[in-house]
This record gives sequence, structure tokens and C-alpha cells, in this order.
Amino acid sequence: MTIEKKGSVRVAILGLGTVGGGVYKTIQNNRETIRKRTGYEVEVTAILVRDLEKERLLDIDLALLTQNPEDVLNGELDVLIEVMGGLEPANTVISQALRSGRHVITANKELMAKHGAELLAIAEEHGAHLLFEASVAGGIPVIRMLQGYLTANRVKGISGILNGTCNYILTEMARTGREYAEILEDAKALGYAEADPTSDVEGYDAAYKLAILTNLAYDAKIDLRQIEREGITALQAADLELADRHGYAIKLIGSARESQGGLQLSVRPRLLPKSHPLANINDVFNAVTIQADVVGELTFSGRGAGEFPTASAVIEDLTALLTGESAIRRPVWKRIVNEGVYEPNTQPGAWYVSYCCRPEAAQQIEVEWLSAMLTQRAFVASREAVQLADGAVRQSWLVGGVGEQEVRVSLQWLYKTGAEATTAVLLPVEGEIEPGVEWRQPVSSLVEETDSVRHVL
Amino acid sequence: MTIEKKGSVRVAILGLGTVGGGVYKTIQNNRETIRKRTGYEVEVTAILVRDLEKERLLDIDLALLTQNPEDVLNGELDVLIEVMGGLEPANTVISQALRSGRHVITANKELMAKHGAELLAIAEEHGAHLLFEASVAGGIPVIRMLQGYLTANRVKGISGILNGTCNYILTEMARTGREYAEILEDAKALGYAEADPTSDVEGYDAAYKLAILTNLAYDAKIDLRQIEREGITALQAADLELADRHGYAIKLIGSARESQGGLQLSVRPRLLPKSHPLANINDVFNAVTIQADVVGELTFSGRGAGEFPTASAVIEDLTALLTGESAIRRPVWKRIVNEGVYEPNTQPGAWYVSYCCRPEAAQQIEVEWLSAMLTQRAFVASREAVQLADGAVRQSWLVGGVGEQEVRVSLQWLYKTGAEATTAVLLPVEGEIEPGVEWRQPVSSLVEETDSVRHVL
Ligand SMILES: NC(=O)c1ccc[n+]([C@@H]2O[C@H](COP(=O)([O-])OP(=O)(O)OC[C@H]3O[C@@H](n4cnc5c(N)ncnc54)[C@H](OP(=O)(O)O)[C@@H]3O)[C@@H](O)[C@H]2O)c1
Ligand SMILES: NC(=O)c1ccc[n+]([C@@H]2O[C@H](COP(=O)([O-])OP(=O)(O)OC[C@H]3O[C@@H](n4cnc5c(N)ncnc54)[C@H](OP(=O)(O)O)[C@@H]3O)[C@@H](O)[C@H]2O)c1
Repeated sequence: MTIEKKGSVRVAILGLGTVGGGVYKTIQNNRETIRKRTGYEVEVTAILVRDLEKERLLDIDLALLTQNPEDVLNGELDVLIEVMGGLEPANTVISQALRSGRHVITANKELMAKHGAELLAIAEEHGAHLLFEASVAGGIPVIRMLQGYLTANRVKGISGILNGTCNYILTEMARTGREYAEILEDAKALGYAEADPTSDVEGYDAAYKLAILTNLAYDAKIDLRQIEREGITALQAADLELADRHGYAIKLIGSARESQGGLQLSVRPRLLPKSHPLANINDVFNAVTIQADVVGELTFSGRGAGEFPTASAVIEDLTALLTGESAIRRPVWKRIVNEGVYEPNTQPGAWYVSYCCRPEAAQQIEVEWLSAMLTQRAFVASREAVQLADGAVRQSWLVGGVGEQEVRVSLQWLYKTGAEATTAVLLPVEGEIEPGVEWRQPVSSLVEETDSVRHVL
Repeated sequence: MTIEKKGSVRVAILGLGTVGGGVYKTIQNNRETIRKRTGYEVEVTAILVRDLEKERLLDIDLALLTQNPEDVLNGELDVLIEVMGGLEPANTVISQALRSGRHVITANKELMAKHGAELLAIAEEHGAHLLFEASVAGGIPVIRMLQGYLTANRVKGISGILNGTCNYILTEMARTGREYAEILEDAKALGYAEADPTSDVEGYDAAYKLAILTNLAYDAKIDLRQIEREGITALQAADLELADRHGYAIKLIGSARESQGGLQLSVRPRLLPKSHPLANINDVFNAVTIQADVVGELTFSGRGAGEFPTASAVIEDLTALLTGESAIRRPVWKRIVNEGVYEPNTQPGAWYVSYCCRPEAAQQIEVEWLSAMLTQRAFVASREAVQLADGAVRQSWLVGGVGEQEVRVSLQWLYKTGAEATTAVLLPVEGEIEPGVEWRQPVSSLVEETDSVRHVL
């Protein structure tokens, strides 16, 4: 690498917030380990912040701080660590650093997802390295796994719990039965959610990370519009309870799968069987499962965010520069796949459907909805219902053998019943499902039976 | 690396069994991917087998096979892949190959655990690399994680499910309630256990793997006698059921922890809280959790054995040689820690105790045992019992605040009662436990109360 002074590496840090503070402290605390194992002394030469007046709860030489990116770029610099976030000025400063042959390490998933391909091209052109382990799943070395380890293996699919905020909220909803909005407030108080949680809870953050992983695994150049995206805000606490009774956990999953049409990319809540490797990843933990052709399924889990886990990823990128590991990773992010926006998957699959209604309307809605499914050759694997505090009922179904679009159309019937069916939820179910014991008959006979019961009532 | 013909690597394979067959097939199937990503064409030049006459269910040029290791060593050879197992002739052939500057890849945990340090020293002296990813946890890249990824991080502890045979047996005992011996027969029929299962079920195999991981994580040179070792053969199906009721899973865990006395190493069945990252690793899957000072807890899971997962690890070691990744890993296996055999841990901890008795003797034994515990300042966190098919009762306790030795001594009391207390089980419990709701009183009062109840009866 082009580090000028042998035995010493000069590092500038953009940002001294959660991650920047962790990076600075880790450089101090683990200086000796880094020196012993890489041969390099790490020297922090400048730190960019927005506000020079802000009190820093950190033992730091204030003379290192600056508000001016030019000071950083014109100073003594081998490696630039960008942990300030946002598209600008991060993009400009990183580009300038790479153009002057400096290596860059970033934790910025939004930037990498939106401009990673250009930045990597600039790096390549100028003989610099751009590393971004911290941008996905915090301290879990999934980027190194994809770019450095799985070489003879071809990736066949990726599934990940990529957002700790959402995972915390879903875990707590399942554990306590409390609703989304309440838990979100707790998460804010605990520092697990930001004041404006949109990027997390609507799945944007997970989509950035999925795009990065997909780019690496398939040497692809993903446009974010190719990722189907749905957040967790529409889920009811009752859905977590119902999923549990069906034998599943609900997790927000970023997923990339190969299909005839190319790559199928989505971020959405899914039902995972409790034996699924991601079903037991709880709280703020992240995890990624990679399917590869030789090794099969590998799962990596750990803390996906936070001061030290994220700093760990940044600092291990630094050691990768110092040992030369980064120089031997294979180039990525080249090949454009599936142009344009995502195409809805039309394959038959397994689905969880739930809706809310007054108990007295339940029978009616059930019949209407099953009638609608009837023509679709769907089968019912199981049914569960819960009574809500206000007396209403939340009814849920696992159905199979039918495409998502057909189920969605069938839900239109719910809206015609006049019940509170407007909060209907439709989620994909992972794994095989089978017609349930009591539903081995075709839906048609079921409807008739139910129908006759209704007449009797 | 010292591969003579640029663009082509000549590989010889020792062994063409489960793993050797997988290696050969993977080289054929993924030839193009390897070539594209490393620039090398892989050429198999010789395969060592024991029996030339054996029928090979494999599309292979029989002219490649030989029974003579000299043919392999004197032939065209850049990389030797040892997947035949056993200490000899593997040790001799590998040493010879390394001495002639050839790189070696091995899946042989016994050999690495017993002679790894010498072999690595020979490799270093002759500028050759010795890689052994496949020797631990099959396709899970835990060796690369320890030797190549965690550089700024210092490892603080390792816990692993390292033996798929034991994990399968424990999973099935828990799932079906059937006893060890029966499930072992199933495992043999399924190819998950060998005809002589001793190395697996008595924990030797896991101990080899733990030694290898510890050597890497701590740059240590572990003597196998430093590892406390206990297998799974004494566990009763009822223990799995009882652990479940206490809120735990029982897993055979290889563990390395730092303690005042140095490293504390063990392979033994342990109770893990159901939220523990290893508690939900089932069937033949393996997993390793690494605690490190910056990143915190990282867990890797996947298939720990089998034709292709193991072959994947071997072939990714080959690609590591070809890309140069193996050249930048840090040297390991140098520092001698804790000489001699393992020292029992005397720290107070949490323990699971179970024993079997006739229902009519239960009260008596309970009182005797609790009296014995009484003087030890122990507390009881929970108690569960099951009735067995033959009418006997298996009684179980979680106790805390007391050292293992004290609990073991207290168990002597059981043997005096004349009940079937000889099948007593004592296992460590992971995580914090607290005096149970109904046991907040000191054990003494508990004993009296129980005692008085007995008088009433
Ligand atoms: N937090 C996590 O756990 C985590 C995990 C993975 C990745 N990341 C990524 O890491 C990055 C940083 O996250 P964070 O949580 O550390 O953010 P943060 O706590 O808000 O800190 C941001 C830091 O950057 C500085 N900064 C922001 N905009 C600036 C500008 N225009 N000019 C100069 N300095 C500026 C701020 O300066 P002041 O101190 O003066 O305000 C602050 O020190 C983001 O890209 C985030 O997505 C974070
Ligand atoms: N099986 C797994 O899932 C797994 C996983 C991880 C690591 N490993 C390790 O990988 C190694 C191989 O395991 P495996 O399951 O593939 O064994 P295996 O199926 O028994 O195959 C052993 C192969 O080596 C040959 N061989 C054995 N001793 C020999 C000798 N003295 N001279 C010449 N050839 C000899 C045998 O030749 P013939 O074919 O002529 O009998 C056979 O082809 C072992 O070290 C094992 O611990 C295995």
C-alpha cells in the first residue's frame, strides 16, 4: 500500500459521534495489539466535526478537531475514515481522497448503496482501496466473507436481519404483546432508534445494506429501485402472537434470490419457521445467512450496530489495509443485472394473511374471503385467531399454492364486507407448508361447510 | 507462492473417501469459477488411496490413483491435499511435502491438534503454507476468522458446538425423548456416526478442534491434557426434558475462557439458556461463538461435516493459496500456556444436578442432599422432576453460588441413600441464575420444611 512512512500510518477521521468516538478509543486502547500484529503504529492526525464547540465526552487532543475538510485532505494522511454519514460532503471528500491515492474506510451504507460503484471505480483507477465492512451488519465480517472467503463458491442466495432497530421492535412486540408505536418510543429512549426513525422502520436502511451485499455476492450493480421494500409499521402485536401460534417468528428480512427473471430482491417482514437460523436472532442483533453452492448454508450473527461493534469493523478494515489483505480481494460491483425497478414475483408461494373484524362478522368475512381464494387452487395450512382488547378478533391464515398477486386480489373481498378489514396484513412464509390436517378438503368444500354452519347459526 | 507453472496449479489428493470425493468433484464442478477468480487452472495430478481395487462411485481417471505416497511426492506437485485421516502416514507425508516447499491443506484435526505446532514450524522454515480450515467446523470459516480477521481484536473466549454427531444425538434425544443408545444406532444408519463412535461421543474429536481454535486465538500451544473432557454417553433422555423445563438446552460445548490461572479449557455437556446463540443450533450443524474485546460476540454456524461442506473448506484453502491470502495470515501456535494437565475450576458457579430414585425414596434423598449442600452456602434456583416409564423419578436442581467440587462431594450423599442415585448427572449452567421464587429462604429452612413435611407424611 502507498503508506509513506513505513511502520506508521496516519489516519484522519471524519466524524466523532457514536462510531467516530468508538474508532478513536479503539485506536488508543488496542494500539499495542495492532502494532504487534501489523507492524504499524496508528497515528490520528485530524478529526472532522460539524461543531467545534460541542462538549466531547472523550479524552482527546482538541487540536486534532477541525470543521474544514480541506484541512484533512491537505494534511498528513494515509487513510481516511469516514464515519459522519450522509451523502454530502462525504461523497465529495471521499472521492477527493481516493483521487489523491489515499485509502478510504467508510461505515456509510447509504453512500455505498447509492454511489459505491463510482467510488470503487475511482479507487481502482488511482490504486487506492475503499473498504466498507462497517456499512453492513456492524461488527459481523460478512463483507470480508463475500469478497475474500467465498471464492470457489458461488452464492445462490442471501437472507439477513440487517436492521437492529426493527429487530428490537419486533422482538419486543412478540415478547410483550405491546404495539409498534409504544415500543418505538422505548427504542428511542434506549438509543436504538433515531428521532426520525423512517430510514430504519420503513426498510430503507436494510435495503441499502442488501444492495451492498448483493453487489458483492453477484458482482452486480444494483439500483435501489430493484429492491421491493416494505417496513414494519403496519404490523400489529397480534400478528407476532398469531405467527408464533402458527409456529413462526416474524422478522424483517433482506433477501436476494436467483429466479428465472434474474435476481429477486426484497426487504420485507417474513414468517420464518422457528428452526430457521434467523428465527432466533433477537433484540438488536443482526445476522446474515448465505447460501452457496459448495458449502451450503452459512450464518453469521453478532451486534449490527453500536459504538464498539461498528468501530471494530472499521479498525479491522484498517488492519486489512496494513496487512495487505485488502489488496487481494476480488474486484466487485461491475456487472449490471436486471435493469429498472423490481418485478413482482408471480410464483406460487406460501402466505400469511391476517385481518381484524368484529366477532359477529368473522364468519361472513371468512366465507367471502375463502370464496375468493377458491378459484385460485389455494390450500389452507393453518388458521389461528386472537381476541383483541377492544373485543375485535384478529383472524389469520397460512395459505399455499398461490401467487402473491392472487392473494392480494382476494383481499379486496375483505374490504367489501364493511368490517375493519382495512388493516389486513399479507406476508411471505419461508419454507414448505402443507395443507393442514383439518383442511385436506379443497377450499370449496370448506366454504360450503362453513356456509352451512352460518345458515344454522 | 512457489507454484511453478504460472496460471496452473498441480494438486495431489491423499484420500478419496467422503471428503476426498467431495474435493475432487468440487475441483471439476467449480473449475471455471476458480479460474476466473484466481487466475489458476487446477490440475489433479495424483490421488493416494489404500485400496486400488475398490469400486469408485465417481467419474475419475483411474490412472491418477496410487497406493504409494512416494509416487505423489515425487510427481508433479504444487499443493498436497491430505484428506485420508489418521496420524500415520499423514504426518510423515505432510512433513516431507512441506520440507520440499510444497503447500499442504489438511482436514485432519487429530493430526493438527497433536502435531500442528511442529508441522507449522516445518512449513515456516521451508517457506511453505500449511492450511487446515476443514479440520474445524467443516465449511464454517472460523479458522480464517481467527487468523485473518480478528487482528485488532483480542479474543476473550470461545464456545463451540464442534461435533455434529453429538449435536445430532442430543437434538434427537430432546425432540423424541428416546435414549442415547437408540439414537446412536439411528445416527450410524444415517452415516452421522462411525462404527466406532468413541472419538465423537466421548468428546475427543471436539477436544482436537478446541485445541486448534485455542492455539489460533491465543497464539498458544495447547497440550490436549489441558482440556477437561466429558462426553455425552451418561446423559439420560430425561435430562434433556428436565433442562428444557428449567429453560435450557443441553449441548456438548468446547470452551476456552480466560481465568486467573490462565486458560480454562473444556469439552463437556452444558446447559445453555434458550436465548444463547448456540442453544438453537440443532441436528448436525456446528457453530462457534467468539467473544472479542472490541466487536463483542460473533457467532458463525453452518454444516460442520459432510462431503461438500468439508470440501468447500479445503477448496477455499486452495483459493487462499492462489490469491495470496494465506501468505498474509499471522503466525500462530508459538506460545506455551499453562503447562501440564487441566486444573479443576474452583470458582463458584451454577450447576445442574439430576439423579434417579424410586418415588418413595425421593423425599429422603432430597433432604440428605440438601443437607449436604447446606453447609456450602449454595442456593437453589429451580427444581424439576419427571416420572420415568419404569415408575422411577428423575429429580433435577439448578444450584448456584457453589463450586463444582463441593457439588460433587455433596453427591456422595446420594450414593448413601441406597436409591438409584448412581446415575447422577452434574453439568455446568451458562449465564446467571438466581435463587428461585419459592427458594428465597436459605437451604437450611428449606430442608427443615421438607423434613417436617416428611414427618407429616
Ligand atoms: N451508530 C451506529 O451504530 C452505526 C452502525 C453502522 C454504521 N453507522 C454509520 O456510521 C456513520 C456515523 O454514524 P454515527 O451513529 O456515529 O453518527 P453520529 O453519532 O450522528 O455522529 C456523526 C458525526 O459526524 C459529524 N458530522 C456530521 N455531519 C458533518 C458534516 N457535514 N461536517 C462535519 N462533521 C459532520 C458530527 O459532528 P458533531 O459531533 O460536531 O455533531 C458527529 O461527530 C453513518 O453513516 C451511519 O450510518 C452507524
Ligand atoms: N467426513 C467428514 O465429514 C469430515 C469432516 C471434517 C474433517 N474430516 C477429516 O477428513 C479426513 C478424511 O475423512 P473421510 O470422512 O473422508 O474419511 P474416509 O471416507 O474414511 O476416507 C478416507 C480415504 O483415505 C484413504 N486412506 C486412508 N488411509 C490410507 C492410507 N494409510 N494410505 C492410503 N490411503 C488411505 C482411503 O482409501 P480407500 O478409499 O482405498 O479406502 C479413503 O479413500 C479425516 O481426517 C477426517 O477427520 C472429515
